[in-house]
Amino acid sequence: MPRDDIVNLAARRSLFYPSAEIYPNSPSGFWDFGPDGETIRRKIIEFWRNELVEKEGFVEIYGAQILPEAVFKASGHLESFNDPITQCAKCNSLHRADKLIEEKTKENVPESLPTKDLDKLIEKNQITCPKCRGRLGEVRKFNMMMGLDIGATGQQRCYLRPETCQTIFLNFNRIYKTMRQNLPIGIAQAGCSFRNEIAPRNTLLRERELGQMEIEVFFDPQKIDEVPDFDYVSDYLLNLWLLDEKKLVKVSCSDAVKKKIVSGKTVAYYLARVQQLYANYGIGIDKMRFRQLDKDEKAFYAAETWDFEVETDLGWIELIACNYRTDYDLKRHSKVSNTELSVSEDGRKFFPHVFEISAGIDRTMYVLLDHTFRKEKRGAEERIFLALNPRIAPYLAGVFPLVKKDGLLELAKNLTAEIRNYYLDAFMDEKGSIGKRYARADEIGIPYAITIDYQTKEDNTVTLRERDTMEQKRIPLESLPETLWKMKHGKLKFSSL
Amino acid sequence: MPRDDIVNLAARRSLFYPSAEIYPNSPSGFWDFGPDGETIRRKIIEFWRNELVEKEGFVEIYGAQILPEAVFKASGHLESFNDPITQCAKCNSLHRADKLIEEKTKENVPESLPTKDLDKLIEKNQITCPKCRGRLGEVRKFNMMMGLDIGATGQQRCYLRPETCQTIFLNFNRIYKTMRQNLPIGIAQAGCSFRNEIAPRNTLLRERELGQMEIEVFFDPQKIDEVPDFDYVSDYLLNLWLLDEKKLVKVSCSDAVKKKIVSGKTVAYYLARVQQLYANYGIGIDKMRFRQLDKDEKAFYAAETWDFEVETDLGWIELIACNYRTDYDLKRHSKVSNTELSVSEDGRKFFPHVFEISAGIDRTMYVLLDHTFRKEKRGAEERIFLALNPRIAPYLAGVFPLVKKDGLLELAKNLTAEIRNYYLDAFMDEKGSIGKRYARADEIGIPYAITIDYQTKEDNTVTLRERDTMEQKRIPLESLPETLWKMKHGKLKFSSL
Repeated sequence: MPRDDIVNLAARRSLFYPSAEIYPNSPSGFWDFGPDGETIRRKIIEFWRNELVEKEGFVEIYGAQILPEAVFKASGHLESFNDPITQCAKCNSLHRADKLIEEKTKENVPESLPTKDLDKLIEKNQITCPKCRGRLGEVRKFNMMMGLDIGATGQQRCYLRPETCQTIFLNFNRIYKTMRQNLPIGIAQAGCSFRNEIAPRNTLLRERELGQMEIEVFFDPQKIDEVPDFDYVSDYLLNLWLLDEKKLVKVSCSDAVKKKIVSGKTVAYYLARVQQLYANYGIGIDKMRFRQLDKDEKAFYAAETWDFEVETDLGWIELIACNYRTDYDLKRHSKVSNTELSVSEDGRKFFPHVFEISAGIDRTMYVLLDHTFRKEKRGAEERIFLALNPRIAPYLAGVFPLVKKDGLLELAKNLTAEIRNYYLDAFMDEKGSIGKRYARADEIGIPYAITIDYQTKEDNTVTLRERDTMEQKRIPLESLPETLWKMKHGKLKFSSL
Repeated sequence: MPRDDIVNLAARRSLFYPSAEIYPNSPSGFWDFGPDGETIRRKIIEFWRNELVEKEGFVEIYGAQILPEAVFKASGHLESFNDPITQCAKCNSLHRADKLIEEKTKENVPESLPTKDLDKLIEKNQITCPKCRGRLGEVRKFNMMMGLDIGATGQQRCYLRPETCQTIFLNFNRIYKTMRQNLPIGIAQAGCSFRNEIAPRNTLLRERELGQMEIEVFFDPQKIDEVPDFDYVSDYLLNLWLLDEKKLVKVSCSDAVKKKIVSGKTVAYYLARVQQLYANYGIGIDKMRFRQLDKDEKAFYAAETWDFEVETDLGWIELIACNYRTDYDLKRHSKVSNTELSVSEDGRKFFPHVFEISAGIDRTMYVLLDHTFRKEKRGAEERIFLALNPRIAPYLAGVFPLVKKDGLLELAKNLTAEIRNYYLDAFMDEKGSIGKRYARADEIGIPYAITIDYQTKEDNTVTLRERDTMEQKRIPLESLPETLWKMKHGKLKFSSL
């Protein structure tokens, strides 16, 4: 759906909005999430936790967001987490050189391109300052990490982590030992990362403080093809956008392995699980792809990188980087920290290899809003609703007393409490016409609306309305909590009520 | 329980441990949480959300952690979020002047005491450097906020928030309008705050990056005594440590209001709800108190402050600051940002007053470990377990196949999946003797252990063992998920099975 529709809805219902917006000149790229937005954001994480982390038997950790400089010396961020920037000689505004070139040429500029080559491209394409048309200065590298000094004399240089995965590498050895398991083991983390972007934009798509949910799977490289559950996905079709063919091809996991499109079964299996996760969130299969990254595009340590992308009104948006990071990270941290991080299994001592699934939380939210936004003409009127997965919707049900008097308000209050008692999210709304209350609930994706009316007092039934079809059914009051629980978890359908 | 027991358990089971511990000289005060610790931490927040935020009809937001300088000019942090520090003239080490004096004199040093008075106290009590006995230098104020510069030319001075509540004040006006409700409204937020502590210590009790779950209740000061649900708590006894009496007194909420111990019913009501929350977490009522803060101790903007404290092996630990902040925050932000933040209700235009419930997440975790840690002598053996609330325990149940062969492993796998299918946390452990598996589960507080044995294959029953009593019962396999769900939510007791 058009970006403007999403931004308008977000502003109107306070799903998300610029942080510190009451202060003029607050820095851009920071977003706050209002009540319903916060809930959607949280449920996106819970969904990932339930459907991927727990089902795969991964464990989840929670690490400090500030890490000492040594960590980023080892990881390479201190040296190479840079953006190429150029400053206008006339108005002094700063710009991402690669993005300016991409906008002009409509061609991809590899991250690794030297600054001199960028200078040449700017000259060749006669690119000037987008603000004032002034001449652009020499391209230089700008490190995007946010540094800060810890201690009263500022004696310890630290950085806000630019990605959540470093904590996972630092914790690997301890977790490996504590878990009493052999490889493969998967360690997950959901949290914030921080990047001093030159030009934050498109709301949740390019932020300075961003939510990530990352998984690092540590495995024995000699056993990359030993995946016990591979049979479940061997016929599953991956949407792969292949470099060689320059197009999207549907390839089964087993074929991807056989044809050596991927490095092994471990990679194919997790690509399948990612695709399934996003299908379960509610994204159509035909709107997603794994884009194979070129040598120039992928990180230098990655043997193989697939960007999981979803098509939106703004084009294909990268939601997840799937990186086969080899043993780069553990080896580096082992060396720089002078700590033994290799493991001994099968009589061999080696550094585990890592397959990374690094997903954006806020980007996932944006894309889910884009994909579930519906505008329907109904005669003269227009209906807006979010066709959100019931497990992602901010509430499962709204309870609406027809009027406040004659005991209907009390009935509604009790029912709301009863539904909550089942640890289901419900809210009560007693203000305005029933039609307006439906419209307000639709707009933030509430799957079910329950109306308490005079008949409820007579026969203990209520009207249950389904968001997407607007169909209504009379349901016995006392069966509601269980019915809702089952519908939320896909164990029962509204149509079979 | 002794601090060492907790620290040992935390290290042994990776509940929490120093961040970036593989790097020597990593700054102290930053902690990572391993899988079981992360789960406990998360469940503490969920419990607060279910039992306080949702039951009180509050809404929850999620804000950026980095805020511009103007916010802290308005809040007063830039000027006064300081610690008094002194540096040793000999070894250059830094110390909190007030803490050194408190340790020596065993008397409380008010936060507001001028540095000159601290100098005098150091001299009078002949306090020297605790590290080298050297002479201590003049006391100076040190601002504890962590600053950083945003933008490629570092043009925007920002700070990591030292408390989560400022975002709530900044968001108040928007949320108030979006909610279509009148006052009172409560806005909650759980997240991290950052304080550049001079001397972090006692693991989770004094950190540089700390978890907070905060609630700000905005109300009409003229209606401080209008609390619809006050009847529910009017006879409820608050544990108040009163300044006048210098001791703990049990006072009913209605008496606290009548005797003007608190400013009004709003304050008494929320103090009761806080005490109930922590009783529900599992803290004994006789181990908690609200300590009334002196004018010297409380923040200058607070009309009334109660520190909710819990007694531990380390003494009374402050978990929550309950502050009646009046209209200080909204007024300041309104003025500095030049934005209208007052409301109009009942024909009056005014700034809402604020009652704050600011709880520490990590401190709550520490105190829950302290209070639930059990060491029992059983003959020659010693049993360690955490008597954690089932809703806080990292898992609700462990599933243990007696042996891996003869299909018992498969039965255990299926049962684990079946329990998870009810969105209950279960794990399977097939390694080591059943006794050792029980011991490992006990140690991290798993309330129920399920053993699958040969009888299971015959009659479809399993052994269900309760952690605290170690009692065992045979239960039909198929009824387990529902039984566990009910026991978790207090709808069924093990003893009545």
